[in-house]
Amino acid sequence: MGLFTKDIKTMNDLFVHQLQDIYYAEKQLVAALPKMAEKATEQQLKQGFLTHLDETKTHVQRLEEVFGMIGTKVKAVDCPAIDGIIKEANETAGEVDDKAVLDAALINAAQAAEHYEIVRYGSLIAWARELSRNDVASLLQKTLDEEKATDRKLTTIAEGKVNLRAAG
Amino acid sequence: MGLFTKDIKTMNDLFVHQLQDIYYAEKQLVAALPKMAEKATEQQLKQGFLTHLDETKTHVQRLEEVFGMIGTKVKAVDCPAIDGIIKEANETAGEVDDKAVLDAALINAAQAAEHYEIVRYGSLIAWARELSRNDVASLLQKTLDEEKATDRKLTTIAEGKVNLRAAG
Repeated sequence: MGLFTKDIKTMNDLFVHQLQDIYYAEKQLVAALPKMAEKATEQQLKQGFLTHLDETKTHVQRLEEVFGMIGTKVKAVDCPAIDGIIKEANETAGEVDDKAVLDAALINAAQAAEHYEIVRYGSLIAWARELSRNDVASLLQKTLDEEKATDRKLTTIAEGKVNLRAAG
Repeated sequence: MGLFTKDIKTMNDLFVHQLQDIYYAEKQLVAALPKMAEKATEQQLKQGFLTHLDETKTHVQRLEEVFGMIGTKVKAVDCPAIDGIIKEANETAGEVDDKAVLDAALINAAQAAEHYEIVRYGSLIAWARELSRNDVASLLQKTLDEEKATDRKLTTIAEGKVNLRAAG
């Protein structure tokens, strides 16, 4: 997309733009998740990050499949939102001097990324349906379901163990 | 918080840091929402942004109240996540050359901001409870409920009218 040009003229253009945006975001998360797993202390959290890393690699592949389904070449566009979320996660984590509190901060950071994705996939699915591409919507729905499940799992880990230890 | 120092030693420190972060984010949204209302075409969406602007001003006041309740001075810290979300919203909106498609993009941008806040308030409430500050948790819960209601309203506007017009 060019500066000073208005390249998004239709909902299909908006869909493609958002697809390129979330493709970039998922790839950034593939790079970020191993570092988060390394920083985590609580075993269930560490394992959760590694499991979600595998899922995230599948999400990248599904997006590549969607690019193929709509006949558009695979491309990523910068996504300042996910860059900001990851930057903030690193900055905050770098300031925490207690392993239990760091786990609480890591969960909060990961949930910000999950919710960003939940919003983006939610819109992509709604737009795909409006564009009569239920096949694309169904594929993206699988990813959305996994993002929501990860978010719930993070809440369970936080409320079950991590917050209690961090406050203790 | 200083560079190269680890200033977050307890969950209380993490709570204060996150409070300063969301305080910055809410103030950025007070600045961004009038511009989003101006760009919106669909009347219900335009009015929705203005209503949420009033709510957001109340959220800022509630955060100032929380700073008082915990005996900490009111302060904002940079929040790269909300900066990224707003930057991305502006960039995408600037590329859209169709009023109906722009409305769809604006809703998507606003929902990214709402979900960012939903995550942050969710953690703040959970941490406040662990820190035995149910009074603080109750006050923040009011804001969280309003953020969730706004998110649902945006989905209703998108699915009821905007996406249909944008795809049409």
